[in-house]
Amino acid sequence: MQLIREAHERIRAKIHRTPVMTSEVLDGMAGNRLYFKCENLQKVGAFKARGATNAVFLLTDAEAAKGVVTHSSGNHAAALARAAALRGIPAYIVMPNNSPVAKQAAVRRYGGDIVLCEPTLAAREATARQVMERTGAAFIHPYDDLRVMAGQGTTAIELLEDVPDLDVILCPVGGGGQLSGIAVAAKDIRPTVRVVGVEPAGADDAARSLKAGQIIPMIEPRTIADGLKTSLGEKPFAEIIRLVDDIVTVREESIVQAMRLIWEVMKLLVEPSGAVSYAAIVEGRLSVADANIGIILSGGNLDLDRLPWQ
Amino acid sequence: MQLIREAHERIRAKIHRTPVMTSEVLDGMAGNRLYFKCENLQKVGAFKARGATNAVFLLTDAEAAKGVVTHSSGNHAAALARAAALRGIPAYIVMPNNSPVAKQAAVRRYGGDIVLCEPTLAAREATARQVMERTGAAFIHPYDDLRVMAGQGTTAIELLEDVPDLDVILCPVGGGGQLSGIAVAAKDIRPTVRVVGVEPAGADDAARSLKAGQIIPMIEPRTIADGLKTSLGEKPFAEIIRLVDDIVTVREESIVQAMRLIWEVMKLLVEPSGAVSYAAIVEGRLSVADANIGIILSGGNLDLDRLPWQ
Repeated sequence: MQLIREAHERIRAKIHRTPVMTSEVLDGMAGNRLYFKCENLQKVGAFKARGATNAVFLLTDAEAAKGVVTHSSGNHAAALARAAALRGIPAYIVMPNNSPVAKQAAVRRYGGDIVLCEPTLAAREATARQVMERTGAAFIHPYDDLRVMAGQGTTAIELLEDVPDLDVILCPVGGGGQLSGIAVAAKDIRPTVRVVGVEPAGADDAARSLKAGQIIPMIEPRTIADGLKTSLGEKPFAEIIRLVDDIVTVREESIVQAMRLIWEVMKLLVEPSGAVSYAAIVEGRLSVADANIGIILSGGNLDLDRLPWQ
Repeated sequence: MQLIREAHERIRAKIHRTPVMTSEVLDGMAGNRLYFKCENLQKVGAFKARGATNAVFLLTDAEAAKGVVTHSSGNHAAALARAAALRGIPAYIVMPNNSPVAKQAAVRRYGGDIVLCEPTLAAREATARQVMERTGAAFIHPYDDLRVMAGQGTTAIELLEDVPDLDVILCPVGGGGQLSGIAVAAKDIRPTVRVVGVEPAGADDAARSLKAGQIIPMIEPRTIADGLKTSLGEKPFAEIIRLVDDIVTVREESIVQAMRLIWEVMKLLVEPSGAVSYAAIVEGRLSVADANIGIILSGGNLDLDRLPWQ
């Protein structure tokens, strides 16, 4: 927990304190009081800004001078590019050569140096290694990294400051960086709060891993929530198995319905991955009533020309 | 100004204190510091919640018991229905029989009693009069009403509390209720702030009225910003001509571009009318640099199945 408190002090001036929003309409539908923590309104449009900023600003000056590197085609890539730009150091972002132009543009917008590679995991890892050897840059993993996990956990500090009497926190789970950080912080601040992970039924490795007591990797994830296709990391899993109360799965149609309700009623853009926590409410996966439920809206980056209800 | 302070005390527990959001990316594009006041995140998805709530709670118990009535197919209708429900009184909403099902659903969601009529202004006014005669309900005009204008002006109190050193405030203008209320409050709190109205070139009656020194009604408005098609009201115009520094017009393509940028970069759903203030920045209609600019995002209600870039 101390790492997360320190992370918050380190990054708070460099990120948004995102608002917690409420809706009478959605409360009425849910029969609970819902508190939406809007990480879709975070810098770079996702909670990833927290972990990447913490990792970059934890480097020594000597380490930092050589820059940072990661392989990611998603929100972590843009977050790392932005954090590196804030520190004035290079960010090498290894991306598959078939990654969408919009995602490459987001990385360039923050000054990231894109290194394209073949679209396989082996090529991504090999290319990242080459960049490290060539430049001496420090590798910052998107989730399997204690510095990143601590950064993501800062979300729970803010949420529980704003709403101290939460009964449940719902958080999406992909690689597990956010869920593990939030579980550590939330259980420290409020031991009675239930922390529940939510994932698509088509990418349910976290639910199966928690049940099995060991990581069961995702082979062929199938879900519209592209940010949650990754398999659980080892470091996050160690915290998840210790602290997370449950992991529930949701159907694809619930994710789309949840996303559309958040857009229509709350006027907030969330990406499919960002709507997954609320999908557990829409689908009635929580057997609670009249409770205070914190819901992490994790991100809002998506292609506005291809919406799931079109 | 005293009316606006009192309005704020009266309504503040019944509405959202909407956040003021910022974006490094949009600041960089604009060469100014932009402070977006998110009235799209207001109750019922628009600033109209402020004025309607103030008007409803200013009624005496005897007046209120008979209910309220308005003719509107837009955000004021939903706002009045919600405010009446809060007070536990009937709201009769006269709507044209061709108004979209979604807008009727929004009014019903808040418990409004819809009275359909032919889709002409004469029919709407006649029907509203019939409802008043039958029920004794109090008529609450969407903008040509001092109680409503005072409610809308509360936005400026909050904005200047959060960002005291604004140089300019940009606000959309349709009937003028919001612009006039904001001008009164803003000039009282910070006399040096410039208050600038923004409207679509295809519905530019406010710009022409300000120039002519008298109201020039809009005959055939043509704009995607459907909330701004109404002509200026007399009571708002009296304040606008006294206090507003300028009214600028923006092109349709700037409105769509502004709307899309707010969606993509800020992850906020705004309707076309709600993006009009920012369109003045996108189109470069303000000759300022390095300034603190408050931008009113006035609402976020639109049909997600029919987006302007599709």
